Amino acid sequence: MGLLSEGLTQLLIPLAALVGLAFALLQWFLVSRVKVSGSYGEGNGYKDKLIGEAEEGVDSLGVTIKVAEIQNAISIGATSFLFTQYRYLSIFVGVFSAIIFLFLGSVKGFSTKSEPCTYNTGNTCKPALANALFTTIAFLLGALTSVLSGFFGMKIATYANARTTLEARRGVGKAFITAFRSGAVMGFLLAANGLLVLYITINLFKLYYGDDWEGLYESITGYGLGGSSMALFGRVGGGIYTKAADVGADLVGKVERNIPEDDPRNPAVIADNVGDNVGDIAGMGSDLFGSYAESSCAALFVASISSFGISHDYTAMSYPLIISSMGIVVCLITTLFATDLFEIKKVSEIEPSLKRQLLISTVLMTAGIAAVTFVALPSEFTLFSFGTNKAVKNWYLFFCVAIGLWAGLVIGYTTEYYTSNAYSPVQDVADSCRTGAATNVIFGLALGYKSVIIPVFAIAFAIYVSFSLAAMYGIAVAALGMLSTISTGLAIDAYGPISDNAGGIAEMAGMSHEIRERTDALDAAGNTTAAIGKGFAIGSAALVSLALFGAYVSRAGIETVDVLTPKVFIGLLVGAMLPYWFSAMTMKSVGSAALKMVEEVRRQFNTIPGLMEGTAKPDYATCVKISTDASLKEMIPPGALVMLTPLIAGTFFGVETLAGILAGSLVSGVQIAISASNTGGAWDNAKKYIEAGASEHAKSLGPKGSDPHKAAVIGDTIGDPLKDTSGPSLNILIKLMAVESLVFAPFFAAHGGVLFKWL
Amino acid sequence: MGLLSEGLTQLLIPLAALVGLAFALLQWFLVSRVKVSGSYGEGNGYKDKLIGEAEEGVDSLGVTIKVAEIQNAISIGATSFLFTQYRYLSIFVGVFSAIIFLFLGSVKGFSTKSEPCTYNTGNTCKPALANALFTTIAFLLGALTSVLSGFFGMKIATYANARTTLEARRGVGKAFITAFRSGAVMGFLLAANGLLVLYITINLFKLYYGDDWEGLYESITGYGLGGSSMALFGRVGGGIYTKAADVGADLVGKVERNIPEDDPRNPAVIADNVGDNVGDIAGMGSDLFGSYAESSCAALFVASISSFGISHDYTAMSYPLIISSMGIVVCLITTLFATDLFEIKKVSEIEPSLKRQLLISTVLMTAGIAAVTFVALPSEFTLFSFGTNKAVKNWYLFFCVAIGLWAGLVIGYTTEYYTSNAYSPVQDVADSCRTGAATNVIFGLALGYKSVIIPVFAIAFAIYVSFSLAAMYGIAVAALGMLSTISTGLAIDAYGPISDNAGGIAEMAGMSHEIRERTDALDAAGNTTAAIGKGFAIGSAALVSLALFGAYVSRAGIETVDVLTPKVFIGLLVGAMLPYWFSAMTMKSVGSAALKMVEEVRRQFNTIPGLMEGTAKPDYATCVKISTDASLKEMIPPGALVMLTPLIAGTFFGVETLAGILAGSLVSGVQIAISASNTGGAWDNAKKYIEAGASEHAKSLGPKGSDPHKAAVIGDTIGDPLKDTSGPSLNILIKLMAVESLVFAPFFAAHGGVLFKWL
Repeated sequence: MGLLSEGLTQLLIPLAALVGLAFALLQWFLVSRVKVSGSYGEGNGYKDKLIGEAEEGVDSLGVTIKVAEIQNAISIGATSFLFTQYRYLSIFVGVFSAIIFLFLGSVKGFSTKSEPCTYNTGNTCKPALANALFTTIAFLLGALTSVLSGFFGMKIATYANARTTLEARRGVGKAFITAFRSGAVMGFLLAANGLLVLYITINLFKLYYGDDWEGLYESITGYGLGGSSMALFGRVGGGIYTKAADVGADLVGKVERNIPEDDPRNPAVIADNVGDNVGDIAGMGSDLFGSYAESSCAALFVASISSFGISHDYTAMSYPLIISSMGIVVCLITTLFATDLFEIKKVSEIEPSLKRQLLISTVLMTAGIAAVTFVALPSEFTLFSFGTNKAVKNWYLFFCVAIGLWAGLVIGYTTEYYTSNAYSPVQDVADSCRTGAATNVIFGLALGYKSVIIPVFAIAFAIYVSFSLAAMYGIAVAALGMLSTISTGLAIDAYGPISDNAGGIAEMAGMSHEIRERTDALDAAGNTTAAIGKGFAIGSAALVSLALFGAYVSRAGIETVDVLTPKVFIGLLVGAMLPYWFSAMTMKSVGSAALKMVEEVRRQFNTIPGLMEGTAKPDYATCVKISTDASLKEMIPPGALVMLTPLIAGTFFGVETLAGILAGSLVSGVQIAISASNTGGAWDNAKKYIEAGASEHAKSLGPKGSDPHKAAVIGDTIGDPLKDTSGPSLNILIKLMAVESLVFAPFFAAHGGVLFKWL
Repeated sequence: MGLLSEGLTQLLIPLAALVGLAFALLQWFLVSRVKVSGSYGEGNGYKDKLIGEAEEGVDSLGVTIKVAEIQNAISIGATSFLFTQYRYLSIFVGVFSAIIFLFLGSVKGFSTKSEPCTYNTGNTCKPALANALFTTIAFLLGALTSVLSGFFGMKIATYANARTTLEARRGVGKAFITAFRSGAVMGFLLAANGLLVLYITINLFKLYYGDDWEGLYESITGYGLGGSSMALFGRVGGGIYTKAADVGADLVGKVERNIPEDDPRNPAVIADNVGDNVGDIAGMGSDLFGSYAESSCAALFVASISSFGISHDYTAMSYPLIISSMGIVVCLITTLFATDLFEIKKVSEIEPSLKRQLLISTVLMTAGIAAVTFVALPSEFTLFSFGTNKAVKNWYLFFCVAIGLWAGLVIGYTTEYYTSNAYSPVQDVADSCRTGAATNVIFGLALGYKSVIIPVFAIAFAIYVSFSLAAMYGIAVAALGMLSTISTGLAIDAYGPISDNAGGIAEMAGMSHEIRERTDALDAAGNTTAAIGKGFAIGSAALVSLALFGAYVSRAGIETVDVLTPKVFIGLLVGAMLPYWFSAMTMKSVGSAALKMVEEVRRQFNTIPGLMEGTAKPDYATCVKISTDASLKEMIPPGALVMLTPLIAGTFFGVETLAGILAGSLVSGVQIAISASNTGGAWDNAKKYIEAGASEHAKSLGPKGSDPHKAAVIGDTIGDPLKDTSGPSLNILIKLMAVESLVFAPFFAAHGGVLFKWL
């Protein structure tokens, strides 16, 4: 047994979650002190100061009223979209719950008899039917938590965007803190909420399961499946929504009509800003929550069939939750470095400050991991490793978690290097715009491909070390290590779309050029942090999927996944194809929806008199409806591909082919996901590099409207679906197929492979 | 024993090769009857008729002289590039020969003592040092044959292009036959030459090896390695050459100066046409020869350690060569259908005629396979399968070869569907040009991703069936089945660049619009057949690599390649990354070289007075030099990546990690290769669709110079490096790493994995 007693563990985990929630509330309170309202009468100390520093010549009241109006429109649009989406998803959740219950229940023919345990030999475990029921409940809870994570994130972001705009009048530092604090609200809320719900669920399930920890943690895997399946639709639906609007708005507005981005005359502009919130914020929130839930489930499952579970060592069993708890505390301290200990005074300080967050949280967390590892784990124990038991020392696990954490940092910094316009890769891409859009695209694609190299080596190294030290449990906790600083990761990630929206609101509200420049500077850093966030999401998804894959293999009773057998090899080949199929669907969906959007925007410009002159208002609602309808309709085929593949492969081709598919989609999906999101990020920042004109080189390519700039805009538009729809959805593809396979493993092992059996 | 006696086998194989050579010569003779010369004096019956049918108002003599001049320039450019390239390659070949000899010689410490055989237990085999020596010789022979295949192909193509142009004056049917016959010369020459050299090499090696067939066929694997390593540099160097020139010429000529493609005023136009011959023709020839050599080697190696080899059944052992012999005969008959039995009268008949070739050769070959299988093989025998022996009936092998053949047809037809502008996918891409280049690129990328689905299922099905029936030998002969109609495949494939060149010559020689339209029609069909050819090349590469992988695993003594071991998994992950790294290098190379070309072309337009007006001649030679220098310099890093990866991985990480890398790069590379080449083909034909304006829909997008057309040109330019450089080079990446691993397997097994051993 470790040093930490069971009672203390039971106390500290929920305490950390509550501290996280309290900190999120505090940050929210600080943000809420910026008032968005249309009357002077509300006077408070804060407001007075704000007016005092407001720029001259700007009608402060008028602007504030307009900002409030726009924020309201965005918030209503986003909320109504999410509610519509959730209505559809509730049908899916209902149907899929029934499938889980029926498939898992049928494993032992719906028998209510207790069974002898598989690993904890000599003991009796609960009936398979109970596992089916509790897995279904865990699935529902995971789905609900995921939806809440996305929804609250969106609410906070729409609450924060206008406030960031208003603060930008007082200086870039103030605006930065508002945007960053709002991101932190989301980050802490999500991490704390995910931990708390998981903790409560485990403790409630334990009331029934008692000493049957095998069954208990098997059921808990449903939590990961619920979280990730919601994330899939959130990412895909939100991604299609946001990019249909964005591409459509850009194609007509920027390219044809030559009006600036986010110009209020553009009918698609509200849809575009709504999209940032439902896609980048809500989708990202659900995605990372899914990763978090799945890596916890994978680690818990493997632990439950290892010595922790068999000897009923509660504290060691809860090691994954303890790491997350420590993560919340570490991120809390880290946040203070950005919001209180340093102040941003210049635009050039924004990106370093965000980068510093990554480094600080990683360094602190390394110490944190060491601490929890030595207090929570016994000095020696055994871990289950594909049919055998592996003797492990506690400091092995320290290395596993730490290597995951540091691999995340390497991925983050590599992503930054390839997507920030402060370095040569993006500058080369910008330079290639001299010869037009074609070379821009060629260089951008090449950049994306190249950016895969270091992250893949980092992931491979992390896998090798953690696998060698602690088998699949090592991989699972390495994933948790990468995700342990999720609050900080999400804070700097959500900061991006919030700043993007803030810029949009400034433009729409007719604020001065200077304000727009400030929000643009925030946004450029946000593009990079968004890419870093995606890098993290993909890196952790790779580790999580591998951990889930390992858990699946254990649960399905497979002893080797031998590439030299045809069943496995064809799985590998087809699995490697799935990310392409999936990307084809999502990109085509964005393309088609964008075409519809373009037609509508053109129609409005052509038929609404006075629109170009700014005397008439465009019909924003129709554009919102086009994005909504398209995303809801188009999210179904890719969603079906991901959800049905494991079921079909497992049922008809059996557990080994499915194992091949999982491995294939994992190794192939990682590459496309990283390259797609970095290519898109690089194009976006190459465009911003030309627009900002901060160096001699950049000036020689600009200004806005020059031929190189036009070429850069084309690249940016192509990158949109790559970086915000297909790329990030691929994380979920690989994770979700793995967790679904894990959940259904007993069914496939018992009844799967009918096609090969029949042959 | 089968029905065919050893003596008859010894007679029939070289006979088939000689028939193939004779047929190639006959086709060449027929093509040579079209005279390209500048004087009326040479009067022959053919010429008289030609003048009679020539168009009015065209100065026939002047045009013919100009055509002869241009042909000469292209031929000289291509020859001089290839010679320069071969000079560089000879250094590589020298160094690599030494590496092979030293590495393989060191396996048993350069001992000259005979060893007990591994599989043919109880017998004595030749020393490892002899194997090292003969492998090196086979490597040299393979390299030489590959170089000759590429070189002769190029010679024939440059010989044929001008003749096709001249024949286009007499009608599209005549031009088609000339282009197709020239393709056939190349196809038959390559297939027959490859077979003959392999046959002679085996028989010469046998003089030394006698009854040691293990050693004999181990050494023969060097032939495949030699063929494929030359192909790598041919594809990459040629691909960079052709696309640097093409992209550079288009960017300035078509986009900036608004002059037509292949306009003689464009300084890069000769380099562009030279590029078609060194990249598409010579590169493709080397590539397919490599596949052919490797699949033969893989099949022979597995056979040699199976009952065929151990019981010294020469005829059954030669089954792979007999299939290829039958293929030559079948393709000979097939060719007559295109050149003699049917006549092309209309443009719309071209593509169906080429498609028919595929179908006819496949149907005939199916019967051919049945015949050779039943006469050459004993009715029952055993095959080596990773440490065990598998009992197999001869009709199993019929199914293996046939399924490979038909999978090739499915891949070919799928490719056609996705890249021909007769079907909706390309038309949708063309339609998306309405909203600009960005949507064109998004739709094109999505099309490429989608086009992967059916080929991957076809390959997976072929693998499953042939693997289940006859283990790795089944895969190897399935690959041979797909390649058995290589003469026809190459004929329709080489036809494409020949037509492309013919169009270029027509334009440069100032021939009338009508002639150009005819060659354009040939060329449009050629784009599709080029894509089909690439589909075949990739499909066969996948099967070949898998067969080589199996042979490697057998030779390295690995019994399982278990994804659940960290060594293998990290290999899989890193292997899946390699195609991205490789593509990044090649695409960036094309981009950079194209930028240099653009600068030079711009410089010439700006500084040479009278160039735009056509009164001054551009400096073609400088552009040729830019392409040459760029391609020779830039082919080294990707070449090094491919050649060094197996050596480094095998030496430092050992045979299992290397197995993972091979499997990973195979399953990932297939997808990128197919999607890249189909995306590029689709963009090219979408552009041609708009230009041709054959339907109401197409007319609404055109004419040349319209906004949608400009967007289509951008897509076409982006597609160039995808479809002609990075995509097709990936075949070679996956094959070459596998064959190299096979050749070096004994070394890695004996001395590899030093890093893990050291840890």
